[in-house]
Amino acid sequence: MSIRVPYETVKSTVKQAFLNLGLSEEQAEVCASTHADSSLEGIESHGLNRVPRFAEYVQKGWVDINAKPELVGAKGAVENYDGHLGIGVLNARFCMDRAVALAKEHGIGCVALKNTTHWMRGGSYAWQAAEAGFIGISWTNTESCMPMWGSKKPGVGNNPFCIAIPRKSGPIVLDMAMSQYAYGKLGVYRLAGKQLPYPGGFDKDGNLTSDPGAIEASGRILPTGYWKGTGMAIALDLAAAAMANGKTGADLDREGRGSCTGCCQIFIAYDPYLFGSEEEIQAKFDDRVAAADATEPDREGGRVTCPGERTAATRAKNMELGVVVDEQVWQQVLDLAAGKMETKDIASACILNDLQDDDKK
Amino acid sequence: MSIRVPYETVKSTVKQAFLNLGLSEEQAEVCASTHADSSLEGIESHGLNRVPRFAEYVQKGWVDINAKPELVGAKGAVENYDGHLGIGVLNARFCMDRAVALAKEHGIGCVALKNTTHWMRGGSYAWQAAEAGFIGISWTNTESCMPMWGSKKPGVGNNPFCIAIPRKSGPIVLDMAMSQYAYGKLGVYRLAGKQLPYPGGFDKDGNLTSDPGAIEASGRILPTGYWKGTGMAIALDLAAAAMANGKTGADLDREGRGSCTGCCQIFIAYDPYLFGSEEEIQAKFDDRVAAADATEPDREGGRVTCPGERTAATRAKNMELGVVVDEQVWQQVLDLAAGKMETKDIASACILNDLQDDDKK
Repeated sequence: MSIRVPYETVKSTVKQAFLNLGLSEEQAEVCASTHADSSLEGIESHGLNRVPRFAEYVQKGWVDINAKPELVGAKGAVENYDGHLGIGVLNARFCMDRAVALAKEHGIGCVALKNTTHWMRGGSYAWQAAEAGFIGISWTNTESCMPMWGSKKPGVGNNPFCIAIPRKSGPIVLDMAMSQYAYGKLGVYRLAGKQLPYPGGFDKDGNLTSDPGAIEASGRILPTGYWKGTGMAIALDLAAAAMANGKTGADLDREGRGSCTGCCQIFIAYDPYLFGSEEEIQAKFDDRVAAADATEPDREGGRVTCPGERTAATRAKNMELGVVVDEQVWQQVLDLAAGKMETKDIASACILNDLQDDDKK
Repeated sequence: MSIRVPYETVKSTVKQAFLNLGLSEEQAEVCASTHADSSLEGIESHGLNRVPRFAEYVQKGWVDINAKPELVGAKGAVENYDGHLGIGVLNARFCMDRAVALAKEHGIGCVALKNTTHWMRGGSYAWQAAEAGFIGISWTNTESCMPMWGSKKPGVGNNPFCIAIPRKSGPIVLDMAMSQYAYGKLGVYRLAGKQLPYPGGFDKDGNLTSDPGAIEASGRILPTGYWKGTGMAIALDLAAAAMANGKTGADLDREGRGSCTGCCQIFIAYDPYLFGSEEEIQAKFDDRVAAADATEPDREGGRVTCPGERTAATRAKNMELGVVVDEQVWQQVLDLAAGKMETKDIASACILNDLQDDDKK
């Protein structure tokens, strides 16, 4: 069951939990904000839900809270860092900041990070670039959780890909996993006794199905756009591993730690005002978004929006009424904040973020 | 009906058709190769099929065969060109070459092109980067041909996105339109009296359907991954228009010329051997692809491959047996080469490339 908890309570509780894990004041502050903001914006799967999992990984030694990203190479507009299995959120925040700094100097900036850990909500970092006034593009590779097209066994990650556009009236943010639904979403539908709104995978006999339980049982989650999703996932994996000179999804599979431990992430920033004035470019954005939003809805009372547009409203609503959190997860976070360090494996593997999915549910 | 024509005959005939349109020897050679190679690799929709359409646009004055890309701005690793509605293929070839040159100097290179025309097969330019030994990323915006998610009227382009990985044993190339199927593909299935293998759009009553004729009638083609495809399409559109300071899809809609006339295209190249040796990175690629390909097929005799992997075999087969061309299209190209300049509108709007789609059919 879900309850609502005031944002400040959520954030301070998460922060205390992180302090208890040994994070510094500054580390705990940034990480708590990132998790709390994800839940605030309706992305529970990578907000509160990920706190117990993070604690578990720190306890297992899969995340080294003392590690810092180390520069291992640079050329022109590109830098390469080794994340040394440090805190994924902090490594990623650092790298997008560097990408923005490089873009200020070179027009475009790219930071390729290896040996990092789960960045939680992928969109956070593209969003970070947008807040700095830059177009942000980022992606990660992950261990395999989705069958390649034409296969029935997991062979590729659902490698999320993000693009953010710095719009004054609210950024447009794509945050898109390469699977149609997250495993976490399947569980939500199954527990609610509901079918998925559209087919989300294959059952054990290879039939396309909207039955979440049948997909969980077969492990044959549907790629975004069928063959397209696994094609893009493998291309992103190869690109990330080469750009960062780090581990591929196949390497992660062999290591078998799970949840992106040791993965590569790419952060690209681009100055949108290089060739047009800020006023001109912002007018272009607003005009384009307005034209899309003005198209005729497919049903009475429907509303067409671009990705990220509803986020401001979600934030405002949850800031007023309280953040929606799962009661059981919240209890775990409270326990962690109270110094009870037992964690349970809440999030299933590979439930990477899917902002738009959540936007539309 | 399809017939097979020797590659050299295809290429020389297309070249003569282009010479007749007034292209120079050099222009005709590059354009003819690009079209002929697309058909050779099984992408008829953007190979031979596009030759009469190109002739029509030249005749209408929508493509200016004398225009050259003009540098309008540059900063660090980024250059911005105005394509002046020149030949799309040549503008795009030029820009990816520049992106590679910039990447040699800065690690990453980005060229943002505005006011260009249809680039035919999007994958050609990412492939071009891969052949030069670079990771290539490119995309284009287009006029609207697909409803936004939640709408029933076209509101966004199917803006193809491409990634190429320079693998010695054959590049991995993703070439992915944001619609699940091209309109051209719907026509192929309808004429063959077949249903699509998976739902490809909505009928006039808003029901998801695999009936190609019903989708053509409603114009409600399905985005790749439902809401995800239109989310990514709008993000790519906004990014391209800002990066190049050019037209958005909404601008193209208002101008109403069709088929990408005046669009923006982005070309990014990245040196994959910045931080790892060529040997090391190539081994990483081969290992990753082999792991994906080795996953268990979902049916007896099935074969799992990564995007682009089957292309070499398709090329070799068609080089030996002849390029597969539609008899009617071939007659039109022959007519154009013989100096009969009447063209018919063969390709329907927005049948942008979909390499993987073709890979899997």
